[in-house]
Amino acid sequence: MVVNVVINGYGTIGKRIADAILLQDDMKLIGISKTKPDFSALLAYHSGIHIYAPKENIERFENAGISVAGSIEDMLSNADIVIDATPQGVGAKYKPLYEKHGLKAIFQGGEKADLVDISFNALCNYEKALGKRFVRVVSCNTTALCRIIWTLKTNFGVKKVRATIVRRGADPHEIKKGPIEALVPNPVTLPSHHGPDVKTIIPDVDIVTTAVVAPVSRMHMHIVNVELEKTVTADDVIDALDKAPRILLFSEKSGFNSTAAFIEWARDIGRKRYDIYEVPVFKESITVVNGNELWLMYGVHQEAIVVPENIDAIRAIFELERDGFNSINKTDNTLRILRRWP
Amino acid sequence: MVVNVVINGYGTIGKRIADAILLQDDMKLIGISKTKPDFSALLAYHSGIHIYAPKENIERFENAGISVAGSIEDMLSNADIVIDATPQGVGAKYKPLYEKHGLKAIFQGGEKADLVDISFNALCNYEKALGKRFVRVVSCNTTALCRIIWTLKTNFGVKKVRATIVRRGADPHEIKKGPIEALVPNPVTLPSHHGPDVKTIIPDVDIVTTAVVAPVSRMHMHIVNVELEKTVTADDVIDALDKAPRILLFSEKSGFNSTAAFIEWARDIGRKRYDIYEVPVFKESITVVNGNELWLMYGVHQEAIVVPENIDAIRAIFELERDGFNSINKTDNTLRILRRWP
Repeated sequence: MVVNVVINGYGTIGKRIADAILLQDDMKLIGISKTKPDFSALLAYHSGIHIYAPKENIERFENAGISVAGSIEDMLSNADIVIDATPQGVGAKYKPLYEKHGLKAIFQGGEKADLVDISFNALCNYEKALGKRFVRVVSCNTTALCRIIWTLKTNFGVKKVRATIVRRGADPHEIKKGPIEALVPNPVTLPSHHGPDVKTIIPDVDIVTTAVVAPVSRMHMHIVNVELEKTVTADDVIDALDKAPRILLFSEKSGFNSTAAFIEWARDIGRKRYDIYEVPVFKESITVVNGNELWLMYGVHQEAIVVPENIDAIRAIFELERDGFNSINKTDNTLRILRRWP
Repeated sequence: MVVNVVINGYGTIGKRIADAILLQDDMKLIGISKTKPDFSALLAYHSGIHIYAPKENIERFENAGISVAGSIEDMLSNADIVIDATPQGVGAKYKPLYEKHGLKAIFQGGEKADLVDISFNALCNYEKALGKRFVRVVSCNTTALCRIIWTLKTNFGVKKVRATIVRRGADPHEIKKGPIEALVPNPVTLPSHHGPDVKTIIPDVDIVTTAVVAPVSRMHMHIVNVELEKTVTADDVIDALDKAPRILLFSEKSGFNSTAAFIEWARDIGRKRYDIYEVPVFKESITVVNGNELWLMYGVHQEAIVVPENIDAIRAIFELERDGFNSINKTDNTLRILRRWP
């Protein structure tokens, strides 16, 4: 079976999911929707992707030299599933239209959990999403937390998680968002939404998170404190994270001493758009105190980390693979996601 | 003839020149030198590049799993030419060693003009560098100014140039340089060194430049005011820049309204490390007042713009091509440098 996929919204996440779908042999990209004929639309068009646009904007596209394949409704009528990659909260407004077209749909982490049948992370709950109609891939920060916590939980048991999330202020292409000189509690009241969001995936975890926005654009960073069930050494944790998919350990000895180094590494290895799908962990930050209290720090590439999760979510919904690890392996091979480096 | 090239210094510029040499059929990369076994050295080693290191550091490399091919002197004894990509001012200290080995050498724009036989820009003075022994590829900012001024001069004549250079504070991987919240006249006294540096390439131009460092890392920007010999329209200038190599025009209508958009575009088209070898000009900034007074603004990708110039400089030194345009075309084809977009 080949699943016919359309993507509503072709921004930071949408364009990356489009590229990822083009690499799969069990999915076909029918088209994407754009509202404005900007360079991103031009690039998609020149690479042979079918562009759909709101009826009232089609003339603007044609004037910009982009032939439009049809309206957004036309696009939806050609699909088995729509990936909603519209801005935060807009997906909820589109859901009735997706329902009208009898479509299955994947929403992103900006939408509320109660919009869907299940919130999704490939490592934690792939099997629970089998055959579901409406699935939400949780946000970048929640995805990273889930991968880390799940790995710790299955290896050592987790009593509680206390985490601070230092968020990027804007994506690298954004020029009208801030802060540019402030640290912003986000929100001032605790907890941040990330803890409750993790519970949509791992319901029984005791977790409190707080978040701060910083004037950076390329990555988030998490500082995580976990009380484990078992007594462990740092090496035990390093072994467990090293074996887990979509988590990579990077040593300060090789120069990995900042999020900037992660990005430079991704540029040097030739990743398109320097995308880091994995959670890059500062290896030497992994520290155990009092026998079972673990600390660690890692980066989260907000533009890229959810891309493989969206691909796996499609496979779960259509039961293209019944075992999550099979889907993860397939996705990781096509996206050249690393299990270990170097 | 195939020229045996070694690169002394494998940082921002050195690693890019190495990649570019690997794409040429008339040059062979014999090896590169590194002082520390960081991830950049690991990547080069795992991609099959021969690594040379200072004798006293070889053990550190071996401990990091990197087999070293020899000392820096060993490297130099295997080459026809060395590309010096060491930090600013260090090249001058190495020159006697290059001379001792009977080598030709290319230095970067951080070195002084009187260190070499000729300062070089492929578009402006390729033929003058034919057969020379010591050549300096001028800095990123001077390279961009030269491409623009040369194109204007050959098309319309140039009476004088007055330019402001807004410089990036640090490269994206650098975490110990600033400013992070200030604008810094660079220097306070006028002119900045860029104007005199342009004259090492285009001696007869009347040019004054001033520079300011800003808290950005991905690109410089130039605001240039040129008094032309001829009366022109903006469209005349657009046509001339459009036809010139290594200059690209980008329209605000397609969303090109900041240096961030240039970078996002380069990421989207899949450029390794999002390298922009071309001078990306804000098309709508091109404005003519009083008949012959031109204004324009453009970005300069400081990490990448001099890479093709280094390749051309090798060809000039060994007279692999006697016509500069033949070398430019060959380099541009191999690096997939665009003459126009889309």
